[in-house]
Order: sequence, then structure tokens, then C-alpha cells
Amino acid sequence: MSNWEEYVRTVEPYVPGEQPNQPDMIKLNTNENPYPPAPGVVEALKNFDTDKLRLYPEPTCKVLVDAIADYYGIRSSQVFTGVGSDDVLAMIFMTFFNSKKPILFPDITYSFYDVWADMLRIPFETKALDDNFQIRKEDYYGDNGGVVFPNPNAPTGILMPLSEIEDIIAHNRDVIVVVDEAYIDFGGVSALPLIEKYDNLLVVQTFSKSRSLAGMRLGFAMGNEKLIRYINDVKYSFNSYTLNQTALVLGVQAIRDREYFEETCAKVIATREWTKCELKKLGFSFGDSMSNFIFATHERVPAKEIFEALREHNIFVRYFSKPRIDNYLRISIGTQQEMEHLIAFLTDYLKE
Amino acid sequence: MSNWEEYVRTVEPYVPGEQPNQPDMIKLNTNENPYPPAPGVVEALKNFDTDKLRLYPEPTCKVLVDAIADYYGIRSSQVFTGVGSDDVLAMIFMTFFNSKKPILFPDITYSFYDVWADMLRIPFETKALDDNFQIRKEDYYGDNGGVVFPNPNAPTGILMPLSEIEDIIAHNRDVIVVVDEAYIDFGGVSALPLIEKYDNLLVVQTFSKSRSLAGMRLGFAMGNEKLIRYINDVKYSFNSYTLNQTALVLGVQAIRDREYFEETCAKVIATREWTKCELKKLGFSFGDSMSNFIFATHERVPAKEIFEALREHNIFVRYFSKPRIDNYLRISIGTQQEMEHLIAFLTDYLKE
Repeated sequence: MSNWEEYVRTVEPYVPGEQPNQPDMIKLNTNENPYPPAPGVVEALKNFDTDKLRLYPEPTCKVLVDAIADYYGIRSSQVFTGVGSDDVLAMIFMTFFNSKKPILFPDITYSFYDVWADMLRIPFETKALDDNFQIRKEDYYGDNGGVVFPNPNAPTGILMPLSEIEDIIAHNRDVIVVVDEAYIDFGGVSALPLIEKYDNLLVVQTFSKSRSLAGMRLGFAMGNEKLIRYINDVKYSFNSYTLNQTALVLGVQAIRDREYFEETCAKVIATREWTKCELKKLGFSFGDSMSNFIFATHERVPAKEIFEALREHNIFVRYFSKPRIDNYLRISIGTQQEMEHLIAFLTDYLKE
Repeated sequence: MSNWEEYVRTVEPYVPGEQPNQPDMIKLNTNENPYPPAPGVVEALKNFDTDKLRLYPEPTCKVLVDAIADYYGIRSSQVFTGVGSDDVLAMIFMTFFNSKKPILFPDITYSFYDVWADMLRIPFETKALDDNFQIRKEDYYGDNGGVVFPNPNAPTGILMPLSEIEDIIAHNRDVIVVVDEAYIDFGGVSALPLIEKYDNLLVVQTFSKSRSLAGMRLGFAMGNEKLIRYINDVKYSFNSYTLNQTALVLGVQAIRDREYFEETCAKVIATREWTKCELKKLGFSFGDSMSNFIFATHERVPAKEIFEALREHNIFVRYFSKPRIDNYLRISIGTQQEMEHLIAFLTDYLKE
């Protein structure tokens, strides 16, 4: 070992999930939107002035921040943007989770919270979901260094009522509470209105799911302007120019088109509800997902077997070999046609 | 003050440099390339398959990593890519600069080294350039937590001979030495061949200057594969999907076009040398810049006055009100026509 290795920030190497790329595959493994981005996005890329690419992007991301503020009816000073919600969350962890007390999040949740905590040497404690995979709000009332959870939760898809979220925020006025709303647009109620009431609340959202732009890496946080200023201070000390010229332009187009957004979300929701009915008939059970995926277990056949059978037939879903959830499949909602294909396969496969 | 403020990572707020955006301005303030990106970049954007935007990018950035490795004749395992060289350098600081000993860099240098060190709570010590703005290699031989410097240095533009760089690396085998080569393609000699010999060397480059892609945010590091693996471990724990779909595709096109790259670099160099001659005639003096800017002081008129006069006439250069360099202007090299315009203005302005 070279001596320099002594000072390396060693981390449990995170292995990015499989990104299969086969013709004719049905890709239901990473919660992407099955519909293309808004027409304005496509148009803006076609008409993009490529000479702009030689110039640095505008570092405050003003056009995009303004468009988000405008869409949600808040002030631009209440919006922070980053390279996907992962970048936004990493900046938030760095900025606010510097206490010696552990931050709190559920045991079954977005797989990156403990990765960031480990990497940034932030102490953390997980709180077990109840047997129905529900967050127990009381678990988050004790002394802590901060709280973070997704709503709806991932990979369960289960939504928490806003009143319970407010209880958690109200019980934690001395730390920052982050509500990670990556999937909120598929039927959930956002905690956004609470940012006016609580200066310790950050609501994080993304363009990756409901706005069909996973490929552009765009996420944002909304909160009290003092919080946003603190995150920006750290962000400018880390990387001043994060969103590139294309991301800024396409992001603005994606957020402006309310009609297309509502229409595609409605389609995903309708297909999700149809899929729930069909999966139930086939002997699956699951919490009532309000996201763009269903987290399901079968009454008879182990999840891993179904996962592998699907995979052999070019249908990709997500399987986690983790405690408590290793008999579940996370199935992203594709187009109606893709889900019909999935159900047809499962109907045949599960025939006894 | 709310109690949560106690745990905020407070940093000296970095204020991003001015990004004027006026018609007919001559923009010589941020070292951008005056020429558009390679024709293949323009073409690739026009033909971009926008349906891809709904899908996550490939997280290992393989297409781009392979293209860079191919261009430089190294292995893909020796290349790390990020959102501009700022992202790459921030990841390197996080990964390797975790000793209690101070990292070392010059007193006059890229303005972000101390910003990262402050933000990441890394102790640092600056070493004064000599009176000719040269790095004294012996200053970097003592016990330290790591070494970082640009070559050519910024904002001086002065190149260090490879033999001296090798001396610094050889004297620091127990820590990581980072040679930041943002401007190396404008006449410098890269330390890249030394990565085969020294496992403690990282060479960082960018697409922002010589490849006319400041707007796409693309940077990379090259080094021993063990070093690259450590950076990737931290990167995947921070943000798995950093480079978006457009950045990956356009980056590949930019790096593949060797001919266009060499041609535009040669044009910038020719214009730089012409500008040096003209500035000298007007009473300016400067180190022998091997970058795409000239760092000049005038024998009679204070830099700040010239800076303001230029600005009033829509010519933007960079002025730093910092110790030792507050009588200098950093003038980026634009097109030949832009520089002729600058010289014409200065000729008139400096007439007694």
C-alpha cells in the first residue's frame, strides 16, 4: 500500500444499477417515464444555437429557477437547482447535516441516504417501517441531526398524509427536514405549501420522472430563502457551473408545459391503476402506490424467480436482495401497451 | 438565529464572475474559446434522438471515457470524467486530501483551490510565486497533505518545464500531486506520460477551453487506475449520474475531431503571439503566456483604470483586486478580429 492510501476517503463502492439497452426490451426497472419529454423540449433542442456551447452557462441558472418559481407560484429565492435530485440532496446533506447527532430516515427507503451519510461521515439511524411499510411519524420526534424521507416512499410507493408530515416537521424545528418528492406528481399531495410556515423544511423534486427528463439530470429544492442561500453558498464553493446550456434550455421548456405534464402524469396514473387490478387478479399484493411504480409480492412464487423469468423474456423490473424486501419486485409503470405485455406474460407464467 | 443554523456548513460565499451578455460585446473575460465547437458536435446535436432524454444516462460515461482514452493512447481505466474540471477537482479534493497536514498550492493561482479547501475543511498553505510569477519547485518538497497547481498557471499563463513538475511529483510520493492542465493545449507540454511512472499523479483537463465546450461542463482526470477507481467510488457515492445525455454525445464528437482541435488551438496561439507583440508596443509587460490569455500590466496606467475604460466600450476583460496582482489584467484571446479591435482601442486610449 502506498502511503497516500492512508488518506483516501474510502467508501463502500456503490454499484450503479443495471442499465440494459436492448432493442425490443420492456424497461420497467428504473422508474423512467415511458413518454417522451414535452414537445417544447424536442423543439428547443432542434433549434439550439450551438455557438452558445463555447460559452459558460449562466451560473445562477436564473432562467430555470424563474420558470420553476413561476410554475409553483413561489419566489425565485426559494428555489435551488442541481444535476438531478441526487446532486441537490448531496448538497443538502453537506450543507445542513453537520451535527454530531444522527440523522434519521426509514430502514426501507431511497438507497442513497445511507450512501451519502457514509461518504460524508454523517452519523445516521434508520427507523423501521411498520409491517404495512408505513412510516411511523413518532419515530422521528426524538433528538436528531436532521430528518429525510421520500414521499411517496421508495421503493414502496406509499404516500404519507400531509398532516403527518407536518407533525414531523413541527417536532423538528431545530434541524432540517427534507421531504424528497421524486414521485409526488403521480397522485401525491406536495408539502410545498408548508415552506411558508416552516423555515426548517426543504422539498426536493426532480425532472427525471414526471417530466420525462432523466437523461438531462435536473433536480430542485424549494424552501425558505435562507435555506436556499446556504445551499447555494456550498454549491458555489463546490462547482459554480453545474447545469449545462442544454439542461437549462430544455428544463425551462419542460416546466412550462403544464398541459403536457398533466396529461402524461394522468396516463401513467391510469395505467398504474389498471396494472394494480390485473396484478391483484394474478395473486400479487402491494401497498397502494401513489408513484410511477408498484412494489409487489406474489402469494406463491418468490420474487427472485419472477424477476429472472421476466428478464429472460426481455422484461426488466427491479429486485432488491435486501432484508424485509427480498420477496418484492419494483415494477415501473410503462406505457399501457408495455404493461399489457407484462400482464400477458405473467398470466401465462403464473398458470399452475 | 434558528437552532438549525448551528450545524450549517458556513462558507465564505463565492460570487461567480460576471457573465455579461450584451450584443456586440467583446467577451475576453472568462477564457472561453472564440471558435465554435467541432462540426461533429453541431451535427450530433441536430441529429440528437430526443426520446433518449427520458432515460437515465449511462452512469460510467463509457462512450466518453473510451473516446478520451483512445485520443490520449491510455487505458479507459485511467480516465475519470465529471461536470467540468471543477467537479473533477472537487471530487479529487474530497477523495485524497484527508490528511491533517496542509495541502500546498501557489499564492497566485486558480481561485478555487482555497474555496474547496475551506468548504471541505482541508488545511492548506500557499507558497509564494517568485517575483517573476514562477513556481519555485523547492517550496513543494516539505511534508504536506497533497499538492495542486495549474500548468500553465492561472492567471499568469506561465508554463513550468516538465522536468520541474517531475521533481515535485518525485518529492511527494506519499501524497497525491494534481497537475491542473486546463490550458495545456495552447502550447504547453502535458505531464500525462508521467502517469505511467508515478502512481501519485493526477492530470486534470477540460473541454471548456481548447475544445470550445465551456457550455457543456465536461472535465476529466487521467492517472493510475487505482487513483481513478478511488475517485469513482466517491463520485458514485455522491451522484451516480452526472453527465447528461447531450454532454456524453457531444463530448465524444469534440474529442474525436483531432484536426479541428489542432486547427483552432493553432489559431488561438497565433493570435496570442500577435497580441503579445502589439501589447508590448503599447507599454504592457507580461510573462510569456502559454495559455489562451495574457496577464499584463501597463508601465503607466493602472490596470483598474484600463479595465473600466474597456468595459465602458463593451470590451470585457478580467481584473482581480487581490494582493500582488491588482495592477494586472487577464485578457482572454478572442478571434484575430476581436483582438485587433482591442488593440485599436488601447492604442487610442493610451495615447498621451
